[in-house]
Amino acid sequence: MRTDLETGPEAELLERFRAGRRVALARAISMVEDGRPGFETILHALHPQVGRAQRIGLTGPPGAGKSTLTARLAQAYRDRDERVGIVAVDPTSPFTGGALLGDRIRMNGISTDPGVFIRSMATRGALGGLATTSKEVADVIDAYGFERIIMETVGVGQSELEIAGTADTSVVVLVPESGDSIQAMKAGLMEIADVFVINKADRPGADRLAQEIEVMLHMRLGEAAPAAAGHHGVNLKGLGKAARQRTRAAAQEQGGWSIPVVKTVAQNGEGLDELLRTLDRHHGYLQDTGELSIRRRRRLAERVRAVVERRLQRMAWAQGRGAEILEESLPGVERGDESPYAVAERIVREVAGRAD
Amino acid sequence: MRTDLETGPEAELLERFRAGRRVALARAISMVEDGRPGFETILHALHPQVGRAQRIGLTGPPGAGKSTLTARLAQAYRDRDERVGIVAVDPTSPFTGGALLGDRIRMNGISTDPGVFIRSMATRGALGGLATTSKEVADVIDAYGFERIIMETVGVGQSELEIAGTADTSVVVLVPESGDSIQAMKAGLMEIADVFVINKADRPGADRLAQEIEVMLHMRLGEAAPAAAGHHGVNLKGLGKAARQRTRAAAQEQGGWSIPVVKTVAQNGEGLDELLRTLDRHHGYLQDTGELSIRRRRRLAERVRAVVERRLQRMAWAQGRGAEILEESLPGVERGDESPYAVAERIVREVAGRAD
Repeated sequence: MRTDLETGPEAELLERFRAGRRVALARAISMVEDGRPGFETILHALHPQVGRAQRIGLTGPPGAGKSTLTARLAQAYRDRDERVGIVAVDPTSPFTGGALLGDRIRMNGISTDPGVFIRSMATRGALGGLATTSKEVADVIDAYGFERIIMETVGVGQSELEIAGTADTSVVVLVPESGDSIQAMKAGLMEIADVFVINKADRPGADRLAQEIEVMLHMRLGEAAPAAAGHHGVNLKGLGKAARQRTRAAAQEQGGWSIPVVKTVAQNGEGLDELLRTLDRHHGYLQDTGELSIRRRRRLAERVRAVVERRLQRMAWAQGRGAEILEESLPGVERGDESPYAVAERIVREVAGRAD
Repeated sequence: MRTDLETGPEAELLERFRAGRRVALARAISMVEDGRPGFETILHALHPQVGRAQRIGLTGPPGAGKSTLTARLAQAYRDRDERVGIVAVDPTSPFTGGALLGDRIRMNGISTDPGVFIRSMATRGALGGLATTSKEVADVIDAYGFERIIMETVGVGQSELEIAGTADTSVVVLVPESGDSIQAMKAGLMEIADVFVINKADRPGADRLAQEIEVMLHMRLGEAAPAAAGHHGVNLKGLGKAARQRTRAAAQEQGGWSIPVVKTVAQNGEGLDELLRTLDRHHGYLQDTGELSIRRRRRLAERVRAVVERRLQRMAWAQGRGAEILEESLPGVERGDESPYAVAERIVREVAGRAD
């Protein structure tokens, strides 16, 4: 990675980026997305400008109307003259990239607005983890000066939760029909949700689902994890019961966030005003309590970890002799003459340049 | 990792393991699960004995009755005097480990049978990825001599698909109510399914769902991926259209596997015989066509990659100064004085023992 940025192609790109040239934004994002040479240099250089945008994560089961909701939210922010980046991520499959892009195109009204930047990402082409890459794409949009960034994910798997759950404000979108299936996914969703949305709330079952969520939130609060301290990685598992109670008490004293359940009908805009107010209120809460800094610090630490691991992987497979050693050894491993562990040891030695 | 196994605690454990002592099996599995010192030595030593069991992956949405189906299958294998290992994995959350264990206990009839070994695993405590660890646990059971291993996962996220999809035979379990939600998850499920099961098939909608799946399978076949070559990682995306057609034609000539849809009512055992026959038939197909070797080779290559990455991660965070450097640097990164990328570079240099 180059850190001297007086000259060279990265310096040129950065200059145009900082001058607000939209084509430079698109190019920087593509570099990051494809992991092209110099992409870390760009991210390194932009780091001081990152951290001004509010990042909103939107997750929930397929068919919950997240795309429509995202389009509505983006429009609402545009009406306030705020610029919006949308990063739509589908980690489930390389095959669904097309469908996601199709969803995006339905965002007709906003797709030609220069104050909106939309990028769809699927597994294809992402090196070292889609979760990290999508957050790096959000960083670039953030550094460009956009005020809001919406990270929309397609499902509720682990990768999706990792992406949506590391936003400043994580929104879990459900529909009345989700009732049956949320039981099993509740742990993951409960951990990340700052706000619940019941979309398509004009259908039967919306009130029942809202009640179920309230009950679940209440149980969880009583159980171990306070609303203000129990999600976003403050690990309560390792604490004793007394310590957990102290943490909970502290969270309540300082005015913990009580997770709201907002009903919307994204299709006709119903409930959007309330959702918008709720998101603003959560952003204010994060700022007032210092929770925003805590979340961002955690995000930076995670980033360092992810970048280290991505580099080590590249050293092993892309730059080093790892792939070659693996290929040579595979027949012996298949015959049982050599174990995968012995081969791995040889590759690690190669990367580390030392015996371990 | 020690490869000299004449003496020491690992040698003793291995001796008892090879003598068929069940307590040694349990101990070896716990070592692997917790990543305790010597666990890779054990796996290394057992490697020549791995690869005899049929591995069956069971995945599908929560509430599809996978646990009941697993118990029924295990019982059926026991009736044939085959020994069965069950590895139940929940990657979604560290909090749900308890619930899963509860499910296991419901497997009353088989839980005290010495020919059945059950292990539940949740995210908690798994170092370097639950997917790899759960497959290593299956290896241990395989090396112990059990004939069948069922890998059951809780949901349909990426990790679940990674676990269930790398089995010899991957079974996707749905229920009539799954109809609405499978649309969006179909890509991932289609890629891994060797067999579809519609469980709770006495409920309305079973036939319709079966038809929908058939249509999806048919579309997929016509589109790009033949049944025999289109899943389990034979990458057709990079091929041109003509090449894909040749591949498809070749698969059909050699008698490609046409993915069956089996209807069951696990609760009362209905359809179990047909499922069992289907699983046997698939195993035979894998052996006859050489596809079994292909899948196992792929699994071994993946294992080497995963072990290399796990070791590099440990070198960075557990053994090296990575965590220390990260902690020292974080305030500067927060202020924007230093970027995550510059810090990562310092940590990587430390691991690699050389400038990069």
